Amino acid sequence: MHPDLKPLTAGLAAKFASLAGPHGALEAPSEILPYTQEPRGLYHGVSPLVLRPATVEQISAILHLAHEERIAIVPQGGNTGLVGGQVPFGGEIILSLSRMNRIREVDAAGNTLTVEAGATLAAVQEAAAAAGRLFPLSLGSEGSCQIGGNIASNAGGVHVLRYGNMRDLVLGLEAVLPGGAVIRGLKGLRKDNTGYDLKSLLIGSEGTLAVITAATLKLFPQPAEVATAFVGLPSLDAAGAFFSRASEGAGPLLTAFELIPRAILDFVFRHLPQHRDPLAAHYPWYALVEISSPLANGVAQRAALSILEAAMEAGTVADAAVAASEAQARDFWRLREAIVEAQKYEGGSIKHDVSVPVALIPAFIAEATAAVEALVPGARPVPFGHFGDGNIHFNVSQPVGGDTAADKDARRAAYLARWDEMQAMVHGIALKYGGSISAEHGIGRMKVDALAAIKSPAEMALLRGIKAAFDPRGVMNPGKVLV
Amino acid sequence: MHPDLKPLTAGLAAKFASLAGPHGALEAPSEILPYTQEPRGLYHGVSPLVLRPATVEQISAILHLAHEERIAIVPQGGNTGLVGGQVPFGGEIILSLSRMNRIREVDAAGNTLTVEAGATLAAVQEAAAAAGRLFPLSLGSEGSCQIGGNIASNAGGVHVLRYGNMRDLVLGLEAVLPGGAVIRGLKGLRKDNTGYDLKSLLIGSEGTLAVITAATLKLFPQPAEVATAFVGLPSLDAAGAFFSRASEGAGPLLTAFELIPRAILDFVFRHLPQHRDPLAAHYPWYALVEISSPLANGVAQRAALSILEAAMEAGTVADAAVAASEAQARDFWRLREAIVEAQKYEGGSIKHDVSVPVALIPAFIAEATAAVEALVPGARPVPFGHFGDGNIHFNVSQPVGGDTAADKDARRAAYLARWDEMQAMVHGIALKYGGSISAEHGIGRMKVDALAAIKSPAEMALLRGIKAAFDPRGVMNPGKVLV
Repeated sequence: MHPDLKPLTAGLAAKFASLAGPHGALEAPSEILPYTQEPRGLYHGVSPLVLRPATVEQISAILHLAHEERIAIVPQGGNTGLVGGQVPFGGEIILSLSRMNRIREVDAAGNTLTVEAGATLAAVQEAAAAAGRLFPLSLGSEGSCQIGGNIASNAGGVHVLRYGNMRDLVLGLEAVLPGGAVIRGLKGLRKDNTGYDLKSLLIGSEGTLAVITAATLKLFPQPAEVATAFVGLPSLDAAGAFFSRASEGAGPLLTAFELIPRAILDFVFRHLPQHRDPLAAHYPWYALVEISSPLANGVAQRAALSILEAAMEAGTVADAAVAASEAQARDFWRLREAIVEAQKYEGGSIKHDVSVPVALIPAFIAEATAAVEALVPGARPVPFGHFGDGNIHFNVSQPVGGDTAADKDARRAAYLARWDEMQAMVHGIALKYGGSISAEHGIGRMKVDALAAIKSPAEMALLRGIKAAFDPRGVMNPGKVLV
Repeated sequence: MHPDLKPLTAGLAAKFASLAGPHGALEAPSEILPYTQEPRGLYHGVSPLVLRPATVEQISAILHLAHEERIAIVPQGGNTGLVGGQVPFGGEIILSLSRMNRIREVDAAGNTLTVEAGATLAAVQEAAAAAGRLFPLSLGSEGSCQIGGNIASNAGGVHVLRYGNMRDLVLGLEAVLPGGAVIRGLKGLRKDNTGYDLKSLLIGSEGTLAVITAATLKLFPQPAEVATAFVGLPSLDAAGAFFSRASEGAGPLLTAFELIPRAILDFVFRHLPQHRDPLAAHYPWYALVEISSPLANGVAQRAALSILEAAMEAGTVADAAVAASEAQARDFWRLREAIVEAQKYEGGSIKHDVSVPVALIPAFIAEATAAVEALVPGARPVPFGHFGDGNIHFNVSQPVGGDTAADKDARRAAYLARWDEMQAMVHGIALKYGGSISAEHGIGRMKVDALAAIKSPAEMALLRGIKAAFDPRGVMNPGKVLV
């Protein structure tokens, strides 16, 4: 923790609580508990106080006091982050944005939507759809994650290859700086070259520079038609060749290209029997492909079929099911989403969120698979994810075994104890291929040391200089991104 | 200028010259002259020395010496900037990137291209095309502007509504910091969430933070078909309605939507008789619309025709010519490009590069037109530009008159003397509509005071803090963006 930070006294806690307005503070341990635990159970935080302000002015007053009194703050959205960025490790105050959840404005003609940080991603998608528009960010936790957290972590998801990351979807931001100054940048402009890009800097800063309170987001016309295909692939190299063909054949109409290994489908069918295999035979790899068209004349379906036919002739696709209805397309996507849950039933999972250049995915997966199998004999790699963005969730389930309950817990713990060792190995291989050690989840607390190890001293000095320019007293989310 | 900067002595000039390698320094005034004048003739700089290094190592050595000796540097690309950002106003050394112009790598499978800063935009487009790919940035000066300058100024152009600004097209950067440290960030990744976004910060920083030496850029599949239409519009409001229809009907296939007023076509046909009017009758406004399809099956043409037919029925389009050949499409684009040159023959032109929310363009143009006509009776506004991005080049030609040569120069000078006054008025109206005072040209020297006037004290403090983190001695392009 920053050497100049101060502990929270009872008197100061009362002051903070009063600044958050009526019903704006939680002080009972049982009420605080849900804010200090994260869903994956990897991190356990501790906090004496959760503030739930309802206005920008309240947040400004809170950050003013925090700066003046040198009290640390951890901003928190839907608490779904996967790298501990939202967890108070040092007894910090939690500043929850949950009550700041209004959709402020939907401008269908201008294709923009202005929303407060605490709205869920699903609420933003629904508000856009109600206006006949698409907000394309989509990810597994969209029902509970909040748009402010999506922005603070530069969230990715399944439509990045067409619509970009969160950073590409934000036109303007409102944010409160340590000290209480409010940046009022809710412009809905497509072009604005006035000074350094503060907006892009706040996006992905994981609550360490400022509190994002609202955003103006880009909307898109809704596609008139969507073709969704579940595709069996004979090999990983074939996945690369098929992706190239789909990308050239469909261009901007290609809106998703997800990679799924057979091993993880086996997990799903074993534990979640409501799901069905879309294809009759088994293949080592699968792709979930979506092609969207602005025209209601069968173009999406025809493009999908023509790409699949050519790929089958070329031998890069073994079999495919093209959804015959919206319901069937939804089933394909539910199967894709189930692969996260299904891993939980297979014991401990050591997870990696890496990216490499798209063309190098097969080589990366082959090398990383061999490496983790050598490190932990019996470990079961189930790499899946956003092939079209080069973003692979290289997750590794623990070896099979451990029948009694006591055995089970001990074996799980022993496996997870090798997280850092395995992570260093997988990160090393990703870096060797010109990749990134954090594609879409961010640095948080989990990868603070890893970040410092991969950036040059000059880059680290710039990151620290930027932090100091925004937060000279280090009150914002200490220990995250930078130590 | 920064109070701690030092003048360049003869001894230091020789040292700098030697660091730039053989043939890397120009010291003769006649050789320096082209680097201190800019094409529009608005700014005249002065410099004792132009350095033309050929390697990153030479640039690193130059920036090390500049930092140590507190000598100011102005980085310069193709010298086509429109706000004086590349001009040495205080006798600074010019650091030209022109000799760093290699295409380092084209990765067609990965859809990336790595290029040095001094390559022209046209050379980048050609290298992409040679690999069967599209690099979509396109603007009038593409034959001479350099990609490094495009990045430093976050260039826009005619395809932003589909492909984004330069910031959206850069995957990785190599740059040299004051002091000489090299940031080696030439990654071709679509997702990389490792720390604050230094890349976006350097893009659009106009040479005030570092020298960009190379970039890895995004490529796209080339469209299989392009439909290009030159469209006559009955009114400005109709332009808005037609844009909405085209945007909803074509979605991501809509790759350009340019607005052109009749008055500026009259300029073109008067002075550049090689151009022909694509339509038989006259209309107050025109749109140049491009629809691109990844499929070679007539979809682009059919989509264009169906959108135009519906718009004609609705009365938002009066007449349209759809290009029957690539040659005709090129003619439409040449006509669009000629409107910049044609203005030169109509006397002085006071230029504004503003943006407003797309839906407010008609209201903005109406109000700004009335205001400038009231300010300078007889002044001729010819607003044109990138309607789909909300980016209007609100240019105003001087009143007609002044027949003798002497009269002509005096009248022109008298008109241009009102630049600041008119600019303040037009900027004020753009801001009232939630707009920006610099959509795509940047701040440079021209808008330094305007920037300080529109940003809050907290934002200005952040911009200065960032500048100090990168360039504590203020040697990089002093007096630009920030004073």
